[in-house]
Amino acid sequence: MERLQLSHPAGTTTILAGTDALSFAVAPVRSWLADRRVFTLSSPEVRALHGGRLDVLTETATSRVDLDVPDGEQAKRLRVAERLWETMAASEGKRDSCLITLGGGSVGDLGGFVAAAFLRGIEFIHIPTTLLAQVDASIGGKTAVDLDAGKNLVGLFRHPQMVVADPAVLETLPPRLVRDGLVEVLKIALAFDPELFELLESRAEVLKGSDPMALHEIVPRAIAAKIRVVEADPEEAGLRRILNLGHTLGHALESAGGYRSLLHGEAVAWGIRFALGLAGSRGADPEMRRRVEALLRVLTLPPLPEVSARELMDLMLRDKKTRERGLVWVLPTEVGRVEIVADLEFAQVKEALDRFLDGESEPGE
Amino acid sequence: MERLQLSHPAGTTTILAGTDALSFAVAPVRSWLADRRVFTLSSPEVRALHGGRLDVLTETATSRVDLDVPDGEQAKRLRVAERLWETMAASEGKRDSCLITLGGGSVGDLGGFVAAAFLRGIEFIHIPTTLLAQVDASIGGKTAVDLDAGKNLVGLFRHPQMVVADPAVLETLPPRLVRDGLVEVLKIALAFDPELFELLESRAEVLKGSDPMALHEIVPRAIAAKIRVVEADPEEAGLRRILNLGHTLGHALESAGGYRSLLHGEAVAWGIRFALGLAGSRGADPEMRRRVEALLRVLTLPPLPEVSARELMDLMLRDKKTRERGLVWVLPTEVGRVEIVADLEFAQVKEALDRFLDGESEPGE
Repeated sequence: MERLQLSHPAGTTTILAGTDALSFAVAPVRSWLADRRVFTLSSPEVRALHGGRLDVLTETATSRVDLDVPDGEQAKRLRVAERLWETMAASEGKRDSCLITLGGGSVGDLGGFVAAAFLRGIEFIHIPTTLLAQVDASIGGKTAVDLDAGKNLVGLFRHPQMVVADPAVLETLPPRLVRDGLVEVLKIALAFDPELFELLESRAEVLKGSDPMALHEIVPRAIAAKIRVVEADPEEAGLRRILNLGHTLGHALESAGGYRSLLHGEAVAWGIRFALGLAGSRGADPEMRRRVEALLRVLTLPPLPEVSARELMDLMLRDKKTRERGLVWVLPTEVGRVEIVADLEFAQVKEALDRFLDGESEPGE
Repeated sequence: MERLQLSHPAGTTTILAGTDALSFAVAPVRSWLADRRVFTLSSPEVRALHGGRLDVLTETATSRVDLDVPDGEQAKRLRVAERLWETMAASEGKRDSCLITLGGGSVGDLGGFVAAAFLRGIEFIHIPTTLLAQVDASIGGKTAVDLDAGKNLVGLFRHPQMVVADPAVLETLPPRLVRDGLVEVLKIALAFDPELFELLESRAEVLKGSDPMALHEIVPRAIAAKIRVVEADPEEAGLRRILNLGHTLGHALESAGGYRSLLHGEAVAWGIRFALGLAGSRGADPEMRRRVEALLRVLTLPPLPEVSARELMDLMLRDKKTRERGLVWVLPTEVGRVEIVADLEFAQVKEALDRFLDGESEPGE
């Protein structure tokens, strides 16, 4: 178990990560909740699996109200947030009330937003239950809900008091969702942390079998890397953009598949492969590409959705400023280092995309 | 015209207040908007009166999209905010886009919230067009929308880049709304600023005639007082609570009248009179009460709504914590100084309220 600290403009978040993190959280969470009202936010599915773990944590609260939302992106809507706020107000939630989220990235994104805007902000804690949420979504203070016009368009930067990332809760996660989260670990390792990359390589066989024990070591290391990036750039004005590695094409692939055929991490994995191709054409070391491909094989990606290069270009260029200023790419230059590239010609990208869709329609070969 | 600065945890707000503030705003606003997209938020009524003033301010923006909402509290709803966000997203609003609010407190509260949560926060400017909004609502970073469960329950602390408080726009304000805002000036003067109180006394005759010229002097002074309170306590954890003078009973009176029979300031004025009575029974100087009553006479309050002491007590004690810990009163001890009192017996308050409703059913005598 590691006790990590994330310093941000409004204070400090304590992050307990690794083996038995939930046990180590008992004392600080109980002291945080003493004489306060607590709301817990989860989904029926996650609560059935892990809800019991909340009992020991919330014993010192004066009262507890459990709120449930559907799993997944459908929870991240304003009408859902409004229903939660009305319930919290009707349950006499006050400015010193607290919220605990227990769930994946969607529950965390929604819960963070609901806490941040209830009575101009109440304190909250994340207990992420997916690997993606543990290493990525719960770290960095992004909160959001979706609009019809797109995902995450309404939200705030607001950091939780604490994040408890215990790999034990990942044991109930389907292997596909474990691999989904591992893509974000691979991403931050490739973009920023060569030692973490080597750790992933040395654990590749274990990861292939989706052995959750391997995660006890990887989760705290991945979180530590993300903390360093977020601390350097809390509101995503500079360095933090390196975390968009794989996301330029990844978001378009997710959207093309109607957010159904590919999980977020899977779409990002395909995006990383494409970024490696672009990087190669700019002279990046082929050995790096070989090492990344070897790791991606462990993750056995599903095939690309049926989509044309034209369609993906349209999705990537959807907004006017992007059309005017060009697409921004995060391209690896060596393991642990990327460059931000904004001067690629549209034609060049389109051609690379055509080749990529032709050559890569079979994954993992 | 005075150029005031409000320092807050996230930066500094420039406040241009007094004669010709809108002219002085032209240069800084044009430079702020250069090469950015601007959204303006107002109501049809206010836009018809003052919308033309936006043209010279927004000329440097790459594009401008005008958004209108109904006047008053009905605009402060999540469904209204959602409609604005969808429009802003569909109009290709970006993180460097800007919002200008032109209107009263409701437009400012809503607009601040919409700006603060769009794409995790875009910059905004307030141009308040009521006296209440100029001296109170626009200063201090409170943004909010209402729930069914109550007013201002969802929102954030987020400060605008600039506030432009030009008394010229108050010339179209009905006298009742001018007096409404003057109550908040009286309140902050009584709670915090004896010199401002004396200024109000020396201008009582002019204020009686609702001569807007008197406001050119009063607006910057009232804003300066509020800035000092907000800077000392940005998130209302301590000193800022003194601004609740008159609000404990005032909110109950507003609610009892269904938010129709009394304006906010009018309800607060009645609340201040009641607080003076409580303060008197604790030994406060009767001369202070006489001075406040003389000023309140200038404001010719409408009568109290038909309501019983029992009903007002129920409204004030609506939430559990208040019932357990008791009502909190802000009571003047001398002009410019208040105490926060939380140990009054319910019976004592009820009795005072009975007397108050009996004796004060005719205002201003």
